Amino acid sequence: MNVPIDLGFTAKDIAMAVQRRDVIIVIDVLRCCSTIVTALVNAARGVIPTKTLKEARELHKKHPEFILAGERRGIKPKGFDLGNSPLDFSPQKIGGKNIILTTTNGTRAIVSCKNARYVFTGAFLNAEAVSKTALKIAKREGTGITLISAGTDGQFSLEDFICAGAIVESFPSDCIENSDVVLAASLTFRRARRSLNMVIQSGYHARYLISHGFEEVVKFCSQLNLYDLSPTMKSVDGLPTIINRLVEV
Amino acid sequence: MNVPIDLGFTAKDIAMAVQRRDVIIVIDVLRCCSTIVTALVNAARGVIPTKTLKEARELHKKHPEFILAGERRGIKPKGFDLGNSPLDFSPQKIGGKNIILTTTNGTRAIVSCKNARYVFTGAFLNAEAVSKTALKIAKREGTGITLISAGTDGQFSLEDFICAGAIVESFPSDCIENSDVVLAASLTFRRARRSLNMVIQSGYHARYLISHGFEEVVKFCSQLNLYDLSPTMKSVDGLPTIINRLVEV
Repeated sequence: MNVPIDLGFTAKDIAMAVQRRDVIIVIDVLRCCSTIVTALVNAARGVIPTKTLKEARELHKKHPEFILAGERRGIKPKGFDLGNSPLDFSPQKIGGKNIILTTTNGTRAIVSCKNARYVFTGAFLNAEAVSKTALKIAKREGTGITLISAGTDGQFSLEDFICAGAIVESFPSDCIENSDVVLAASLTFRRARRSLNMVIQSGYHARYLISHGFEEVVKFCSQLNLYDLSPTMKSVDGLPTIINRLVEV
Repeated sequence: MNVPIDLGFTAKDIAMAVQRRDVIIVIDVLRCCSTIVTALVNAARGVIPTKTLKEARELHKKHPEFILAGERRGIKPKGFDLGNSPLDFSPQKIGGKNIILTTTNGTRAIVSCKNARYVFTGAFLNAEAVSKTALKIAKREGTGITLISAGTDGQFSLEDFICAGAIVESFPSDCIENSDVVLAASLTFRRARRSLNMVIQSGYHARYLISHGFEEVVKFCSQLNLYDLSPTMKSVDGLPTIINRLVEV
């Protein structure tokens, strides 16, 4: 049987994907999922996503040794160690440590997937890696794959849509069945790939970030397949934690 | 001020566009809006959209001189004069006549827009025409333009998404402001335009229609800018009726 591939935008799409037991890939290019994969490449032990600032702060009180990171309206909240820029997550700062991360949309979507069997996070930085891992698991388990664009419930994000296209691009066409929205994302990626950074910069959220001084970060997040790593969510010491799939916990 | 351009999929998107007093373009390539523009080109007086089969049949009882046309699950309902295939709407059959049309998604979306000030219907067949007309009015009135993809509430349709891209393609970039979803539709159209029919045939609804013997119709509906006509909705004799914008009623 071919693996059905779909792309959703809303909390309802997440609930349906969980119910179908699909492998889920949460996409938030700017910047949550780019930050997560960069943190893991730079040897963070794990990233613990939280929905709210309050949860993040309370968890940090219990674990003051964890790094407290995230953003609201793109900006690092008061008292946080780090914002949500992958460029700040250097091995010196986060190597060997756990990171509590709370972002406006990305971590909220990831937490909403906590009842799914397999959740990965995807960005341009690791599009091919996450694509290959998800397909391998979906074939083995006989399930579909649902990509989730993590914009505010139902809101469309240009860069996440193109990234969905980049992720499905690596699927061999003879074993999958793309929904209409996935076919469109794929066409969009094929059109945009030669000038990816420029196209992403034309999107709403990139323009917002650039106007707040994050042009270098947008550029960094526009790089395709820089990392060969598939971040995945596991329960570690009772906390839903995003880890490098290949690391035993 | 630049004209804001957006693309919506749901009943909520329609309600918001009506509230903003946007110029609305309803898109349903396969086949409602392709049928409407073809009927008007072939000299139908007007097309009266109805939501339900029941309304269509009741209206036909009052006006047996009108042509009764439409589909459910792609097929002509019992007792109807015509289905929903533009190829059937020849001048011999429909010239000078009013047509009652009821389709699964298209006429439903059009009727939902009845409180908007300006409603047009768009398809590949009249993409450029409807684009120019809508922009002229939006500039004059100082409003935005919302394109509505008429798929079942919230469901994504590949051909309508690409058609939205074809419609915005004619807008001069110096006077509009595209939302992220419009930017994506535009990129998709640019990628698809050289093999439009083939790409459309890969979509869900085209495959359904082709499996029911409508391959020629799908091909017909994939033609770009065949007609220079902008169907628009007006109240004619108390009935919301889609007419050729240039015809005085």
